[in-house]
Amino acid sequence: MREIGIGIIGTGFMGTAHALALATAARLFDLPARPRFEMVVDPDPARAETLARRFGFARHHTDWRALVEDPAVDLVSVTTPNHLHAPMSLAAIAAGKAVWCEKPLAPTTREAVAMARAAEEARVATAVGFNYLKNPLVRFARELLAAGEIGEIWSFRGIHAEDYMADPELPWSWRLDPVAGGGVVADLGSHIVAMARFLVGEIAEVSGDLSTVVRERPRAPGAAERVPVEVDDVARALLRFSSGAGGSIEASWVAAGRKMHLAFEVTGSRGALRLDMERLNELHLFVRGGPAGREGFVEIPAGPDHPDYAAFCPAPGHQIGFNDMKAIEARYVVEAVAGGRPFAPDFGEAAAVQAVIDAIRLSAREGGWRRPAELLYEAGGSP
Amino acid sequence: MREIGIGIIGTGFMGTAHALALATAARLFDLPARPRFEMVVDPDPARAETLARRFGFARHHTDWRALVEDPAVDLVSVTTPNHLHAPMSLAAIAAGKAVWCEKPLAPTTREAVAMARAAEEARVATAVGFNYLKNPLVRFARELLAAGEIGEIWSFRGIHAEDYMADPELPWSWRLDPVAGGGVVADLGSHIVAMARFLVGEIAEVSGDLSTVVRERPRAPGAAERVPVEVDDVARALLRFSSGAGGSIEASWVAAGRKMHLAFEVTGSRGALRLDMERLNELHLFVRGGPAGREGFVEIPAGPDHPDYAAFCPAPGHQIGFNDMKAIEARYVVEAVAGGRPFAPDFGEAAAVQAVIDAIRLSAREGGWRRPAELLYEAGGSP
Amino acid sequence: MREIGIGIIGTGFMGTAHALALATAARLFDLPARPRFEMVVDPDPARAETLARRFGFARHHTDWRALVEDPAVDLVSVTTPNHLHAPMSLAAIAAGKAVWCEKPLAPTTREAVAMARAAEEARVATAVGFNYLKNPLVRFARELLAAGEIGEIWSFRGIHAEDYMADPELPWSWRLDPVAGGGVVADLGSHIVAMARFLVGEIAEVSGDLSTVVRERPRAPGAAERVPVEVDDVARALLRFSSGAGGSIEASWVAAGRKMHLAFEVTGSRGALRLDMERLNELHLFVRGGPAGREGFVEIPAGPDHPDYAAFCPAPGHQIGFNDMKAIEARYVVEAVAGGRPFAPDFGEAAAVQAVIDAIRLSAREGGWRRPAELLYEAGGSP
Amino acid sequence: MREIGIGIIGTGFMGTAHALALATAARLFDLPARPRFEMVVDPDPARAETLARRFGFARHHTDWRALVEDPAVDLVSVTTPNHLHAPMSLAAIAAGKAVWCEKPLAPTTREAVAMARAAEEARVATAVGFNYLKNPLVRFARELLAAGEIGEIWSFRGIHAEDYMADPELPWSWRLDPVAGGGVVADLGSHIVAMARFLVGEIAEVSGDLSTVVRERPRAPGAAERVPVEVDDVARALLRFSSGAGGSIEASWVAAGRKMHLAFEVTGSRGALRLDMERLNELHLFVRGGPAGREGFVEIPAGPDHPDYAAFCPAPGHQIGFNDMKAIEARYVVEAVAGGRPFAPDFGEAAAVQAVIDAIRLSAREGGWRRPAELLYEAGGSP
Repeated sequence: MREIGIGIIGTGFMGTAHALALATAARLFDLPARPRFEMVVDPDPARAETLARRFGFARHHTDWRALVEDPAVDLVSVTTPNHLHAPMSLAAIAAGKAVWCEKPLAPTTREAVAMARAAEEARVATAVGFNYLKNPLVRFARELLAAGEIGEIWSFRGIHAEDYMADPELPWSWRLDPVAGGGVVADLGSHIVAMARFLVGEIAEVSGDLSTVVRERPRAPGAAERVPVEVDDVARALLRFSSGAGGSIEASWVAAGRKMHLAFEVTGSRGALRLDMERLNELHLFVRGGPAGREGFVEIPAGPDHPDYAAFCPAPGHQIGFNDMKAIEARYVVEAVAGGRPFAPDFGEAAAVQAVIDAIRLSAREGGWRRPAELLYEAGGSP
Repeated sequence: MREIGIGIIGTGFMGTAHALALATAARLFDLPARPRFEMVVDPDPARAETLARRFGFARHHTDWRALVEDPAVDLVSVTTPNHLHAPMSLAAIAAGKAVWCEKPLAPTTREAVAMARAAEEARVATAVGFNYLKNPLVRFARELLAAGEIGEIWSFRGIHAEDYMADPELPWSWRLDPVAGGGVVADLGSHIVAMARFLVGEIAEVSGDLSTVVRERPRAPGAAERVPVEVDDVARALLRFSSGAGGSIEASWVAAGRKMHLAFEVTGSRGALRLDMERLNELHLFVRGGPAGREGFVEIPAGPDHPDYAAFCPAPGHQIGFNDMKAIEARYVVEAVAGGRPFAPDFGEAAAVQAVIDAIRLSAREGGWRRPAELLYEAGGSP
Repeated sequence: MREIGIGIIGTGFMGTAHALALATAARLFDLPARPRFEMVVDPDPARAETLARRFGFARHHTDWRALVEDPAVDLVSVTTPNHLHAPMSLAAIAAGKAVWCEKPLAPTTREAVAMARAAEEARVATAVGFNYLKNPLVRFARELLAAGEIGEIWSFRGIHAEDYMADPELPWSWRLDPVAGGGVVADLGSHIVAMARFLVGEIAEVSGDLSTVVRERPRAPGAAERVPVEVDDVARALLRFSSGAGGSIEASWVAAGRKMHLAFEVTGSRGALRLDMERLNELHLFVRGGPAGREGFVEIPAGPDHPDYAAFCPAPGHQIGFNDMKAIEARYVVEAVAGGRPFAPDFGEAAAVQAVIDAIRLSAREGGWRRPAELLYEAGGSP
Repeated sequence: MREIGIGIIGTGFMGTAHALALATAARLFDLPARPRFEMVVDPDPARAETLARRFGFARHHTDWRALVEDPAVDLVSVTTPNHLHAPMSLAAIAAGKAVWCEKPLAPTTREAVAMARAAEEARVATAVGFNYLKNPLVRFARELLAAGEIGEIWSFRGIHAEDYMADPELPWSWRLDPVAGGGVVADLGSHIVAMARFLVGEIAEVSGDLSTVVRERPRAPGAAERVPVEVDDVARALLRFSSGAGGSIEASWVAAGRKMHLAFEVTGSRGALRLDMERLNELHLFVRGGPAGREGFVEIPAGPDHPDYAAFCPAPGHQIGFNDMKAIEARYVVEAVAGGRPFAPDFGEAAAVQAVIDAIRLSAREGGWRRPAELLYEAGGSP
């Protein structure tokens, strides 16, 4: 059986998640190629060694360039702080390797477009880790929307709220660096923008507002010294889709009590559907009509009738978790690398997502409705 | 015991609700004055007669001017289409009567300000039917916010979505008239704007978007002829509060599956609270801190510890309903008319709400962030 | 219009609720007769006076016999501790008056049967306050069951749990008297038994267990002296219905955190339905079949399509409350007294409920499956 | 690093789940030994080959005896129909191997005791797949109970309801064989009995009822011929724990609409907690006391503060799934085999669970309260 050499840069939550996802996908799906764990990289050799041992990577290293240049590596997973996505991905692409990069793809649309262009020219497969799109119920929701189940789409309301930065005493970290992190509009906003595009399509115009509610933080854990926070921690935007539908999104990492509140409601001329990732195994669907007195949202439990759920469990309601969505993502990454249909969302799609984020930033800074397509075009992308 | 002569204009849902609320309040609360049902008015004499008989009104009439001029009437309830609120209220005020008017107070800020001014000059009590503010848990939420329970308020997200106009085959009605109705931004938007102000305070700036997704409707039930819809059916706005908090609101009457989805989430530096009127007896409160592993939103059932609940039931969890909130409203209307503290929200507050709505309209029409206080000032109000 | 003279014994939660329910019913429904508030009785004259004043009762008294003998009273509401239900009701019946008695009807099946017999012989209307049966969604559920919507009924699971006695430091009260109160099996158990019979029908056999978890309590608030508790505070029983369906019930007044958890799930050969009174405006319905991937429980919001909801609100989802269910009950009490169809549940039905309770007690005491019909027969009732 | 040779008998849902769980556990936990995939067995060689290939088993076979005799195998996973658990486990034990067997352990207490005895004498580690006990929130709940967080435990209510046999047209299968399957009381009942014992402790007495609502089924898919169903499909029992607490359980595989409704509520003198596996990442906790108006159940999202969650995700609320619970189980199986503390629940515990099931059966057949300890003793076990 064909094999794909795997290289992973980063051993944090996401590095581990990529490795586990590939291992699980290889066991639960009929993949066209088997992942072969070649190398893992972390600046901290002990961390690299631990992950290598657990997942059976053949080698580990502290320099990502070694990985990118390794001929045995076919797929490079990039799971580092955001500003490193571009140089690592570009180097991997230059070396002819497929890239599976975490989101947001790059700090700016320009860089994202450059990455997408490079991949296109090099004809390598790319994938971006908008993992929530791989939830079986999200994909089922998209099928329902495409089939016209709720009629013409009128409205989208989305939010991605967590509270991992809610405590004002949490110290400064790379997420708060304007380039390395980029604020919540990039960190979580990219997820909900990707979701909006996945479900409803092209976003024609945005009108946004960014705010920074925690204006300074300790320089380090427990430190008396405070440093100013220069990125947004709550982002809000109104949307106008190319289809004519309207919408709004919000992203916050200071939303006390919210842990994984990536939620949306799509309303159409015949019905509505909604989902909240805090209950990721439940889709709520309303379709107008039916016998009097019996209308209501149906609470659909995830089950084998929804894409890829059956690989995890033959019975509905038993529930999949966060890492299972990532395993589904890994399945399609491997298929794309092995030569099947292109992975979605790829770098091109991520550049389009980034253009929406930059349009929100521009609107927040200078006012008015802003067109992501124009920013994409200016950045060299094809709108 | 002192009595207050009641006159009600309108016998629909709201006219009946006012009458029932006054009757119930008189039975469950120690009111300083007893409502005396004097007159009810409806253009249709049969409807007026029915309501009069059921509630024991002494007289009924088809002309609202008869009611306004009736010396036995002390309080005039105005529950007619929106564009009639102003002439009826102004006539009642001119006759020295207190007025309890349904929302939105008037089609424009200018009219609303004029009504508030007239009431102020005539020194008559006024009340506007933002009944959801009277939910015991909403008032308890406000007390928690005022006490700093969730710290500094950072964010407000509100929505009022229903689906009573969602079916595109529903015919044209007065709600779709730009003046008599005014669109969903006025009809439901006023509720969520009033809620935002009640919980978080003054709204300094808004950036809004209005859309009309059902662009034409049958002229009459079953009619082939279509008439264009000239008002918005989905309204969205970003908010900046004077306090520095940010927020967003949405109002929709085409939100399939939503029946009374007036919901909000307020986030602060120490916690969050949220409520959805579709489960009006549940408040969810999160406060950071506490033993490891035990953090989460508390689902608080409405009970006697929350303002005015005890009048309905001595035990928590037994639940109050829509009309009970209206009865609480009636309690404070009667107290205000009898000379107690002014009712809130009164005409002045409703004018401020209207200024927010007009600012959303202006922003939607001409773009940019708009300041309600400026519109209020231009309309003659005191910002 | 015909009038019905109302007399109410008791001015606590339930006395007030009866009065309010009659007042509201007269305003919201087209009743065949108008309630005329004649007399209210309480041993405490100040309490009697207060209720009389608020509701407009013509007279008040401290001796219930005065009420029962008053020729102007047509309907006697009995809302006293349980052991007084029988003497008061029997005296009222003897005076030819209709009786609306709170539950449980009597301490024993024998007394309940005697009351039912007396009413039957006197040909007076009777009603028992199992108010939760009047929830529009409960009645709709019964219609669905009768129409075979979920097929043949296989299983019933019911619970009525509250926590008003959960604190072990709560002092002794009449509810803990074996006769005046009778334990939770009588207090809350009667509600869930009545619900089981309403939805599924005759209960052929029961196997029960009663326990007393708080074995002693302070004699009075704050008192050091403890008195033993002689009644059950948790009751459990397995059920076999005459139809062949099986089931179980639980009643508890020491269920920490539960406030009005009267909940049931009925399962049949084609589907299931469930409801929890803590969210009394939501019915959950599952019917097998339908398109793949879309099966699930429908969350049906209470609305005008459900019996009697429309009287309170023309729109679904706006929610009714505890007192609204009582107003619906009052509607049918008045109709029964005015000569319409008999009220259900009447004294006969309450005697059958009591026989189930006594069968649970017998089973708990002596073991084995026990047949309520036999106890009813032994008590002189017709099984 | 030490290795443990893995052999798995069965390649269905559970066989795959065991393999995946071991693979995942080895990657996410610091195991004292590494699983080495030696052999997988299935009567169907194609199925055995597929699983072997996907998980990297060195060998596969159609005869389970080959696996049991294989010297390279240290741990035997038994995931076959129930009646095969005993012969396979006993053979494995006789060969000195550790055994990880699915539930219910055996058709009768006698066989279960014999298996436990054999394992004890052979000093081999055993484990039984009551995987829901491994849910981080269930284990956290147990810690809370042990710490007295909700005071003295008064009551347990448990249910395990699914609907995989609800359709009367589903054909006969091995689950319906009295020995191979054993009815729902064995299949799902064993899960909820194990949960009751895990959380509350020894069950002293049971009073049960078993029913068969689908009395016959097609012999094969689509077959006209019907065969009688000889096992229960709904089981109910009242419980009395040795501690003095009371309780009830229900198990059903014909519960329309329920997919994984393994749920419990434990009530104590100071509070209560509840969980439903259909939302396995949410624990609801109520503790009496605290500020007025703020009492309620806390909805606790699963997170790193709960046992073993952190291995899957460093953030709360991101959710684990069914297979993740199984991976946690695998962790402790490997640790037990490697010589750490014994796995719980082991064969001894499973025999005690089986005694409760047999006591329910006995009570259902012959009536009365039955003592599991007596059945365990009669079967040769130590009560």
